[in-house]
Amino acid sequence: MSAAGSIFTRIIRREIPAHVVYEDDAVIAFLDINPLAEGHTLVVPKRETERIDALGAVDLAAVGRALGVVAGKVVAAIGCEGYNILQNNGPVSGQEVPHVHFHIIPRAAGDGLGYRWNPQKVTPESLAALANRIRQAD
Amino acid sequence: MSAAGSIFTRIIRREIPAHVVYEDDAVIAFLDINPLAEGHTLVVPKRETERIDALGAVDLAAVGRALGVVAGKVVAAIGCEGYNILQNNGPVSGQEVPHVHFHIIPRAAGDGLGYRWNPQKVTPESLAALANRIRQAD
Repeated sequence: MSAAGSIFTRIIRREIPAHVVYEDDAVIAFLDINPLAEGHTLVVPKRETERIDALGAVDLAAVGRALGVVAGKVVAAIGCEGYNILQNNGPVSGQEVPHVHFHIIPRAAGDGLGYRWNPQKVTPESLAALANRIRQAD
Repeated sequence: MSAAGSIFTRIIRREIPAHVVYEDDAVIAFLDINPLAEGHTLVVPKRETERIDALGAVDLAAVGRALGVVAGKVVAAIGCEGYNILQNNGPVSGQEVPHVHFHIIPRAAGDGLGYRWNPQKVTPESLAALANRIRQAD
């Protein structure tokens, strides 16, 4: 985070223009200017953190509520059959702007989008041990 | 939704076993048994709806809060550099279980995972008109 704030913080402050579709006290939503599909929208907490595990309960609750509202509006406007919600944390995940943002990506049959799905082989024993580690982690 | 409930509702009721890592009044989280990466976890509202735009504000707020908590626990346990959060709505989006669930997918360099990124060409004028439609949609 620079002193000037992320590009999204600058949008929130109206220092940079954006195609805003929704705003409340804690959240703003605007169109992605490089959309993967018509209606591709970003839902952004106004509080600037890189990752959602640093965001805090109040802002996460506000983003959760806004996701439902904005997704409903996108579906109503676009008439898409379905949509993905995607949120990336860290450069290795594909995150380009280090300010939490949820992508709403409308989907259509044959659009070539979606997540690469390549499951691993695991044993029930390894999953049980891993679940125990996650449950106990802080 | 069948009378018996989704497979996730049956996990919540303890009719089917799962590797649970987190639970509160409104949300449960457990390991995906066909993981894309070590620590692949599902965060699931106990209220059963297919899509997040039907879930309602209270449950969405609870899921938002739980996402931050569970993501923090996964990162602490796995030590991953980053992670994707993915939530699919409708069969065309890749949704297989018709009960809202957020995937937390740990990421590492060269893992071959991630979302297919293929932006479209659009004009500022078309985005402005589209933003207006979404803003006004209910």
